Amino acid sequence: MTEKDANQMWGGRFQMSPAEIMEVINASIDFDKRMAREDIAGSRAHAEMLAASGIITQDDRAAIDKGLVQIQSEIEAGTFQYSRALEDVHMNIEARLKEIVGEAAGRLHTARSRNDQVATDFRLYVRAQIDEFDAALAKLQFALAKKALVNAATVMPGFTHLQPAQPVTFGHHLLAYVEMFGRDRGRFQDARKRLNECPLGAAALAGTSFPIDREKTAKALGFDRPTANSLDSVSDRDFVIETLAAASLCAVHISRFSEEIVLWVTPQFGFLKLSDRFTTGSSIMPQKRNPDAAELCRAKVGRIAGAMQSLMMVIKGLPLAYSKDMQEDKEVAFDALDSLRVAVSALSGMVDDMEPVAENMQKAAGYGFSTATDLADWLVRELKMPFRQAHHVTGSIVAAAEKRGVDLGELPLKAMQEVEPSINDSVFSVLSVENSVASRTSYGGTAPHNVEKMAKRWIAQLDSEVAGG
Amino acid sequence: MTEKDANQMWGGRFQMSPAEIMEVINASIDFDKRMAREDIAGSRAHAEMLAASGIITQDDRAAIDKGLVQIQSEIEAGTFQYSRALEDVHMNIEARLKEIVGEAAGRLHTARSRNDQVATDFRLYVRAQIDEFDAALAKLQFALAKKALVNAATVMPGFTHLQPAQPVTFGHHLLAYVEMFGRDRGRFQDARKRLNECPLGAAALAGTSFPIDREKTAKALGFDRPTANSLDSVSDRDFVIETLAAASLCAVHISRFSEEIVLWVTPQFGFLKLSDRFTTGSSIMPQKRNPDAAELCRAKVGRIAGAMQSLMMVIKGLPLAYSKDMQEDKEVAFDALDSLRVAVSALSGMVDDMEPVAENMQKAAGYGFSTATDLADWLVRELKMPFRQAHHVTGSIVAAAEKRGVDLGELPLKAMQEVEPSINDSVFSVLSVENSVASRTSYGGTAPHNVEKMAKRWIAQLDSEVAGG
Amino acid sequence: MTEKDANQMWGGRFQMSPAEIMEVINASIDFDKRMAREDIAGSRAHAEMLAASGIITQDDRAAIDKGLVQIQSEIEAGTFQYSRALEDVHMNIEARLKEIVGEAAGRLHTARSRNDQVATDFRLYVRAQIDEFDAALAKLQFALAKKALVNAATVMPGFTHLQPAQPVTFGHHLLAYVEMFGRDRGRFQDARKRLNECPLGAAALAGTSFPIDREKTAKALGFDRPTANSLDSVSDRDFVIETLAAASLCAVHISRFSEEIVLWVTPQFGFLKLSDRFTTGSSIMPQKRNPDAAELCRAKVGRIAGAMQSLMMVIKGLPLAYSKDMQEDKEVAFDALDSLRVAVSALSGMVDDMEPVAENMQKAAGYGFSTATDLADWLVRELKMPFRQAHHVTGSIVAAAEKRGVDLGELPLKAMQEVEPSINDSVFSVLSVENSVASRTSYGGTAPHNVEKMAKRWIAQLDSEVAGG
Amino acid sequence: MTEKDANQMWGGRFQMSPAEIMEVINASIDFDKRMAREDIAGSRAHAEMLAASGIITQDDRAAIDKGLVQIQSEIEAGTFQYSRALEDVHMNIEARLKEIVGEAAGRLHTARSRNDQVATDFRLYVRAQIDEFDAALAKLQFALAKKALVNAATVMPGFTHLQPAQPVTFGHHLLAYVEMFGRDRGRFQDARKRLNECPLGAAALAGTSFPIDREKTAKALGFDRPTANSLDSVSDRDFVIETLAAASLCAVHISRFSEEIVLWVTPQFGFLKLSDRFTTGSSIMPQKRNPDAAELCRAKVGRIAGAMQSLMMVIKGLPLAYSKDMQEDKEVAFDALDSLRVAVSALSGMVDDMEPVAENMQKAAGYGFSTATDLADWLVRELKMPFRQAHHVTGSIVAAAEKRGVDLGELPLKAMQEVEPSINDSVFSVLSVENSVASRTSYGGTAPHNVEKMAKRWIAQLDSEVAGG
Repeated sequence: MTEKDANQMWGGRFQMSPAEIMEVINASIDFDKRMAREDIAGSRAHAEMLAASGIITQDDRAAIDKGLVQIQSEIEAGTFQYSRALEDVHMNIEARLKEIVGEAAGRLHTARSRNDQVATDFRLYVRAQIDEFDAALAKLQFALAKKALVNAATVMPGFTHLQPAQPVTFGHHLLAYVEMFGRDRGRFQDARKRLNECPLGAAALAGTSFPIDREKTAKALGFDRPTANSLDSVSDRDFVIETLAAASLCAVHISRFSEEIVLWVTPQFGFLKLSDRFTTGSSIMPQKRNPDAAELCRAKVGRIAGAMQSLMMVIKGLPLAYSKDMQEDKEVAFDALDSLRVAVSALSGMVDDMEPVAENMQKAAGYGFSTATDLADWLVRELKMPFRQAHHVTGSIVAAAEKRGVDLGELPLKAMQEVEPSINDSVFSVLSVENSVASRTSYGGTAPHNVEKMAKRWIAQLDSEVAGG
Repeated sequence: MTEKDANQMWGGRFQMSPAEIMEVINASIDFDKRMAREDIAGSRAHAEMLAASGIITQDDRAAIDKGLVQIQSEIEAGTFQYSRALEDVHMNIEARLKEIVGEAAGRLHTARSRNDQVATDFRLYVRAQIDEFDAALAKLQFALAKKALVNAATVMPGFTHLQPAQPVTFGHHLLAYVEMFGRDRGRFQDARKRLNECPLGAAALAGTSFPIDREKTAKALGFDRPTANSLDSVSDRDFVIETLAAASLCAVHISRFSEEIVLWVTPQFGFLKLSDRFTTGSSIMPQKRNPDAAELCRAKVGRIAGAMQSLMMVIKGLPLAYSKDMQEDKEVAFDALDSLRVAVSALSGMVDDMEPVAENMQKAAGYGFSTATDLADWLVRELKMPFRQAHHVTGSIVAAAEKRGVDLGELPLKAMQEVEPSINDSVFSVLSVENSVASRTSYGGTAPHNVEKMAKRWIAQLDSEVAGG
Repeated sequence: MTEKDANQMWGGRFQMSPAEIMEVINASIDFDKRMAREDIAGSRAHAEMLAASGIITQDDRAAIDKGLVQIQSEIEAGTFQYSRALEDVHMNIEARLKEIVGEAAGRLHTARSRNDQVATDFRLYVRAQIDEFDAALAKLQFALAKKALVNAATVMPGFTHLQPAQPVTFGHHLLAYVEMFGRDRGRFQDARKRLNECPLGAAALAGTSFPIDREKTAKALGFDRPTANSLDSVSDRDFVIETLAAASLCAVHISRFSEEIVLWVTPQFGFLKLSDRFTTGSSIMPQKRNPDAAELCRAKVGRIAGAMQSLMMVIKGLPLAYSKDMQEDKEVAFDALDSLRVAVSALSGMVDDMEPVAENMQKAAGYGFSTATDLADWLVRELKMPFRQAHHVTGSIVAAAEKRGVDLGELPLKAMQEVEPSINDSVFSVLSVENSVASRTSYGGTAPHNVEKMAKRWIAQLDSEVAGG
Repeated sequence: MTEKDANQMWGGRFQMSPAEIMEVINASIDFDKRMAREDIAGSRAHAEMLAASGIITQDDRAAIDKGLVQIQSEIEAGTFQYSRALEDVHMNIEARLKEIVGEAAGRLHTARSRNDQVATDFRLYVRAQIDEFDAALAKLQFALAKKALVNAATVMPGFTHLQPAQPVTFGHHLLAYVEMFGRDRGRFQDARKRLNECPLGAAALAGTSFPIDREKTAKALGFDRPTANSLDSVSDRDFVIETLAAASLCAVHISRFSEEIVLWVTPQFGFLKLSDRFTTGSSIMPQKRNPDAAELCRAKVGRIAGAMQSLMMVIKGLPLAYSKDMQEDKEVAFDALDSLRVAVSALSGMVDDMEPVAENMQKAAGYGFSTATDLADWLVRELKMPFRQAHHVTGSIVAAAEKRGVDLGELPLKAMQEVEPSINDSVFSVLSVENSVASRTSYGGTAPHNVEKMAKRWIAQLDSEVAGG
């Protein structure tokens, strides 16, 4: 927002003149210059189509194209001068084009309006972001799967209510997140699929009478097809809201893992070591490792979900077609996507570097008679006891162990038989945490063999995807 | 929430005893009984698989199945007695099963836990809702497309900033919403695709040591496959959040159209007549037609988007696997999906019944020199003027017409030629609203021929989908 | 929502007829019957004013009043028959009144409309809720302060980044929440103050021509004054949104403490024991104590903040005066306030019952050289070292201790002097956790003496407030 | 966010190195430099207190103070060099102080930590914003009240469901917003009152062992008192969330009025003319006046309410005391408060400039038998008819008028007497819109005399407040 800079320091006055207000309202150049690349690409495709359709001459088209290429170079070189008086990125580029190529520049905007132009630019921008997220999430999945493979058999507590419930393996836990980020990638892809229609040619809102070729511009810009309704084309912001919804869920997943990291690096849990690269110390307490990166990752969902909510509130109840309200779409989207970018990058780095403290995990995994369900399942399987009865018997045996202050595996067979005479000493085979996890061989279960297989499958699948990243 | 009933009237005390608090916290039967159908379907599939895998006997399976069928009949007949002491729908059904079939009931829960059971039930419920929405939205699209076809050439103003900008047709405007609801259906379908994996067999969180066949139960319940990670299976609520995100965007679209309906039925606009079936009158002002249904449709997005936001806040930062927090997922989802159901149904009915007031629309369409861009395009096309210059010339001509208090089509040629001598009288062919809309023949443009073709295409596509509905 | 019941089981059809839709839209009796008490109170006050102003006779007034008293008894006795055909609580009561008192009932609605009536009822309802919250929060503060008093000197780690930073006392930690809930009470009181104006007499939207006495009804209903603008009176829902904002922040505070409870009852932290009354066990793992109540308390903020967001989205962009959209205000508010009620009650009960495990807290408090800042402060105070230099010296000493694997208090003086020769053995007086907390005597600091004093002050203040509760 | 600049153009790479990630996470200088003024004020007060308490010397204090004054000059002059390597505004200022005054700078941070320092700075910043909003809203109220005074008798339709319901006056309508913004000011003031406690001296989280005087620093910085609990002092972000809640409701009000402005300037309504200063034209349609400022004002609530939601989601479930998550508080708050500032300023300007089109309003006010309730009230008042019966009779008379195609005032007495024989010709006195509004003399009603009186009262009250603004 342009007033930000003005007000950033105490020089800024709170009261604004009408001219200042309207500049704040109209001048979007401070943020929409991010879409300069997309604007140039769109204009080049448009000019090419206009020439191919005989609406402008090839000479004009050549001049326009050369001018736009030059502008792109100027922007890349940092020499392009943006002017707030020209309000937005589109007019800034068009004005510079006129300086470079003269009258031909005035023909570029034929059969086009600001409304379809900005819709096209923003779709291109969001699409590029989605592609970046796809790559970044693949990299994160890859990091998780590799870490899961080496920890396929690293036993740790599986929690419910944050209380140890049943042993699982660290690799299995990490693969749960591979699944989540896989769904997130799916959502981004589906958003991309729906986004990938080209609004260019919808003009202000009604289409145009020029004999344009919308298929051609759509194809040139990598879209699957042109949009089918001109009013919808300039009124629609679904593509960014859906992308923010995907980003929000992804950020929710990141917040869950980040919370676990924050917990696991406490001295109380001691399950995990983070590298110095993702923690900050204290000059006074040199041993302190604050998980700042994980905390920020946990927090980012606030901003991202807030952005989606903001935008839905803006669009709520808005009549077709374009209203100025829709200008509120970009800043919140840019901020949210930037936020997710930092969070995914940081989490990826933390996963690469993190080291589980296996002995602490293992010790905690056995806590609290965590193999009680294994005992119950043994009773069902071996003694053909109905499940509900086995559950009851197990409760009594655990109570006996608790009374003696011993673990289930340390309880004498005789003590068990006092509860249920048919129990024999083969029961002990299921009472260790290692045997417990090894036994969970059902598809998707935590048995190390399962986890290893699943991790390898993911690694094989992700390997090629990540190679190019 | 159970305390609602207790407190509904002034008998309710505000202060609660620990027992009352825990009943409120633990007893979900008041709302989760909605999932009884799904719970029974899940249990029948599970029992069949257990028997097929040799984990329970065929006799037990037959008894369980018969009992569950009987329970379903009791529920359908309204004779089933729910007990709050049994806390949830799962225990209510299991307890009744035990009454009916005895010990065999105790074997049903083998290789299953409440965690994967509830995850399965809720997925089945949400999936059924998605299927209903798909059908209801198809019906709404069909109503819109049919109305668009008969109004393919009904001219109305196309608005920007709620100011008349360029003429469009009413049919074209309606088709914009067909596009929106088409994307909504796509989002629901994509959510369904991701949802459609079966968590049954994940057990409490770690999988199970019983030799279960997860492919079999998945298939029996219409899922595409079993979920791949047991921790994720019981921790994941993506499917409902994604469904609520799709519902929220759909509700945003509904709010936009509803706002337009509310505007259009004012005496000021007078574009539309709603039927008595969707308006309410006033006993004192019998001519008054309040668009209550449209207003409610406009408002529903608040609750639906709020539900999604609620649920993301609940899941934010939650460690794996199950935590009690997740019990907050159902009530908000039920309420949001109910809300969308009312809104889609109401909008569908309103569209069926609505009648445009063509003469008011037509008159408003010509207001404010709305064919100025047609003039500019004519200058570009016929006089080969650069677009920016044509834009400028048009502005001068409009100013001349405004000064004389006439419309563009009424301005003498001579007056135009004073601004731009090359203009000839073929220009008048583009200055009427009818010619304006007829000229917008670009793909997706508002030309009646385009609109008719697009409406027919939609009708043909939707016809079969709606037939079964 | 009325369709909920209809659809609750699988008998419910998804497609709705226009009549069903309009019943759902118009019939609010299923939820607004909660306001029956307030509606009757409002009508009694209105009738009394009408009679006093000579608008109705005293006979009519007496009949109306007697009838309303009888209706109240019927509702309290549960014999009142609500009818959905009569749509809302107001018409249900008025219709019954007519049955009881005949024609006089028809005079009650003079100089009143549904718009000001519902605004009045809802304000009365929300005000009563605020008063309940004030009492419930006072009780919660009282429980916290009492627990703080007995734990004024119970040492525990003070965390930053969930890493132990400096020792504090458990009492001090609890008093932090007394402050938060104190601010919450302040917010509820401020909302009440602004809410406490009576809209009765605004009529439909424009006021009335009857010579009513709005001061009189306002006073009779406990309002501070009548509202000052009739359009605002029937359009305003600030009072419920502001109340939900206060409720949301309160729920945020509850979520923070609940998160701490969930952490502290893990075996890893082991700082706290909850009573059986607020935990649930597992029949199979009898020693397991799941902090269900704390988890639910943590989650409730989702729903409450979601409700506020919902309502703001509903009201956003709504022209004056009444629109049907505003009917969406009650259900979300009722649900949110119910949710907060459960959370406050549950947290209050948990605080009463909770028992800190002092030895675990104490042990954890000393972890990680947590008295390093005490050492730095000693260097500044005793050796007049600039703070930044003292900070640096302390870092070196901690590093020395870490290298030797000893705690700061165990490091020989000589080793300290190798870093800073001026250090003398009086330094040891500040290196224990007990001395550390005892030294933090600045106002608001954690010194046990401070904490005790503050706890006593709160207890004295709250004692009388809670006595009446 | 620092990565924004880096990524603003296509030079930015998506993948970030760990060092870049941590810079983004740790370097807040790009946004927290807004608080430089507050940081300097806080440090000056702290130094003065340290000297007065004998913790530092008066010489050190003098040196520090002089240095800080110089830094303030440098910042005001724009010559201060911010360094991202120094991370935040606090360290940037402290580092520069050291350059200027040497060792004394190292004593400034005695008995203080970054945690209480940032909490103090942010409170001061938010407090200054609240004071600005109070002044800006007073100005807006003043503009509304003045416009209301001159339009105390300008008749317009009062709407329900956006359908004309009863006549009101434009002045009355404007005063409804004066009431709303009055409540908004009240909420800001209440937030200020709760915010206005000084956290300085809470140190990192536990208080300090230095003999500081917290009353003194609190007073020097304009706070009412020091905060009472050190843990709460550094963990609390209530003050910004509550301020954002007040801002959100204020933005909801702005969105309602803005929606009305957008409606009223349509050719269909034609109730209002906005000045050129707050509309934008179209070079091609010179007569077009797009209400861009009003649209932006309507939209801003999305961002502001989104900011509040964001921050509550961030704080949800966060254990005490400081966590890095809390660094997410500033950017969203700055953006939201900036947004409200633009909206309030723009609305103020629009109100100053707006001109009602009285003849259009008047004409619309009489539409649709809008004085039907006046007739009903006449029947009750003059014929002593019960209200419900009068309502029924009126309905019949309106139907008769509708049938004849005349307005109520044009219906012959005889036709009325056919419905109700007792009606006499004094009834006509209540059937014009002027008489209708004049009759609504109840307190808060729309009678011009009432409106004039109320407008004058507001003007008198606001006059002095605005004078200083």
